[in-house]
Amino acid sequence: MNIYFSGSIRGGRQDAKTYNQLIDELKKFGDVLTEHVGSSEISSEPTDREIHRQDMQWLKEANLLIGEVTTPSHGVGYEIGYAVAMGKPVFCLHQKKEEKALSAMLNGDPAIKCFEYAEIEEARAIIQNIFTNLQ
Amino acid sequence: MNIYFSGSIRGGRQDAKTYNQLIDELKKFGDVLTEHVGSSEISSEPTDREIHRQDMQWLKEANLLIGEVTTPSHGVGYEIGYAVAMGKPVFCLHQKKEEKALSAMLNGDPAIKCFEYAEIEEARAIIQNIFTNLQ
Repeated sequence: MNIYFSGSIRGGRQDAKTYNQLIDELKKFGDVLTEHVGSSEISSEPTDREIHRQDMQWLKEANLLIGEVTTPSHGVGYEIGYAVAMGKPVFCLHQKKEEKALSAMLNGDPAIKCFEYAEIEEARAIIQNIFTNLQ
Repeated sequence: MNIYFSGSIRGGRQDAKTYNQLIDELKKFGDVLTEHVGSSEISSEPTDREIHRQDMQWLKEANLLIGEVTTPSHGVGYEIGYAVAMGKPVFCLHQKKEEKALSAMLNGDPAIKCFEYAEIEEARAIIQNIFTNLQ
């Protein structure tokens, strides 16, 4: 099972620790191709062209995409839109925050399953349910 | 010429006035299907499912997508990713701001042409150039 985890990089890193916790949970169910998204240090060495080429390759190899969509991000949105266009299963998790509503393009897409969570334990349970229901 | 203009709604409306100015410029070159993106009042009446269905219909009818990508937005990213996957021409404009770098997925995608601008006049000139070079 190849998992593409998508989280904000340049849109803002305030949820990086959560990404790392979600990736740890996802690793119980398969290979997380984009494990660096949860890292406390993101290498700035590759060029944008190289990052895009590598991420698109991983996206094509992935069986599904899991996005953490609390922090708005063009890159996360791009990966989700492309994954939906390719017919890949897409699941989005977002934290309950009063000031930010989830994008209508994610929440309104019948091809995307969106889940809200408050605590990390709740997010772990959502991930476990996603993979239980896949089988 | 059907133009899909993409700008942040729920990601943040701080650039709404700029969207409106860009849409006014774009209207010289074709029909802007998503003119409401620049409006000072966004109707909250349609459900997210209806918003997604309508926007996807417009995206399919569009000859090209122009995105204003200064404010990070999942919806804008989604529309761009989907448009690229459909093989539509995509052009992104973003304001020069030191604190925010453009997403590598946009800047690194050879299918997307990205332009940086400081003043609205510069953005208008970029739009004029885009349409001049299309012909």
